[in-house]
Order: sequence, then structure tokens, then C-alpha cells
Amino acid sequence: MQKVNILEALATINEHWSQKIIGEANGQLFKVARGRGTTLWHQHDDQDELFIVYKGHLTIQLRDQNIDLYENDMFIVPKGVEHCPMSKDEVEFLIVGLNITSNEEGGKPRRGGAPDR
Amino acid sequence: MQKVNILEALATINEHWSQKIIGEANGQLFKVARGRGTTLWHQHDDQDELFIVYKGHLTIQLRDQNIDLYENDMFIVPKGVEHCPMSKDEVEFLIVGLNITSNEEGGKPRRGGAPDR
Repeated sequence: MQKVNILEALATINEHWSQKIIGEANGQLFKVARGRGTTLWHQHDDQDELFIVYKGHLTIQLRDQNIDLYENDMFIVPKGVEHCPMSKDEVEFLIVGLNITSNEEGGKPRRGGAPDR
Repeated sequence: MQKVNILEALATINEHWSQKIIGEANGQLFKVARGRGTTLWHQHDDQDELFIVYKGHLTIQLRDQNIDLYENDMFIVPKGVEHCPMSKDEVEFLIVGLNITSNEEGGKPRRGGAPDR
């Protein structure tokens, strides 16, 4: 039972669109991630995905609208809904779901696999 | 599908230790709450309870230690673990779990039932 400072956890991430687990409660993983640029369109048929922005501006592109999230904004992408997160500049966020989704199936761009920091 | 600003949601609460639901994902409720003073010792046998502080200082008293949470600190009280949240001054936080726990069984003090703002 340890507390975690979310900003400090975010500062340890050195790869874009790569989730790091900081806690688990009731089967949900609480993960931090940083992003810049765009991911790929994808959907999760098994889980809702919840975002809370801590720094910067994250755009959740949906097929019919864009959701623009800034600090302390929370948004839930329901299961089965296509989405494509992107950020022109650096963004830091918390993401909650059933497992790690920062993989190719989860829209992670291939180039994002290389450390950029 | 609406975004929610967590600080704005916190600002609408006019009762201490009273949770307000702002979202649901994968069966988990994301709730905001404000507190001041102490709750009562209690435990949840059915769920883990996760806290993230947004403003102020929240102390999660456990039987063998105190966990002091400040802005952006996250802490999970595992199911079955006795705890007693308290805050000397005003604190604002996000709480995640399976249902609303701001009731007598969940340690809400009786006096907290009266609006104080």
C-alpha cells in the first residue's frame, strides 16, 4: 500500500503513447501515459477507456466529432467506439481500463516505439 | 459522451463527505467529493477504493499508519482494510469504486449531512 504521485509517475515515461501501470483497483488498471502526434484509429470491444488530462491538450478524435481535453478534463470512450487520440504538442494523461492498450491493436503508431526522450 | 472538468464538478458540491458521480467506466463509478474534518472508521468488504487528491491535504488513517495525500497523489485502500479519511482543512478529491460509499456504512459522519456551504 503505497501512494503514487501522478505527476512524478508521468515524469518517468520516456516513450510516447506507452502506458505505465501505477495502480489496480477492482480489476481496473490506472495507467499514466505521455503523447505527441497522432495514434491510429482503433476501438476496444472489451472495455470502456477513460482519460484524465494532467498537462497539455489531448484531442480524442471520434468519427463524428472531436473531444478537446485540457487539464483536469475527463472523458470516457465507450467500448466499441472508434477513436484516435492525438496531440499536437506534448500531453500527459491518466488512462483507466482493463489492460494495457498501448500496442498496435490499441492504435499505437509504429514509429512511437522508439524512445524520443 | 460528454467531457467533464473535474475541478468544475468539485466546485458544485456543497456538502462534505458526499460523493457525486461524474462518470462510469467498466462498472466503476468515478466520483468527486469534498471533505473537512473526520469521517468514521469503516471498511468495504466488496471493493477497493481509490483516491486522487485535487486540492488540499487528505489523510487516510489506517490502523497501522497514516497516508498523507496531497495534490495529484493517488492511493488505493484495498477491500476489507479499515480506514478513516480525515482532513483538517478543506480537501477536494476524486474517488473510484463500485458504488456510492458516502453513507453511514461508509463512514460518513452524521453531522456531515447538513449543507455547510
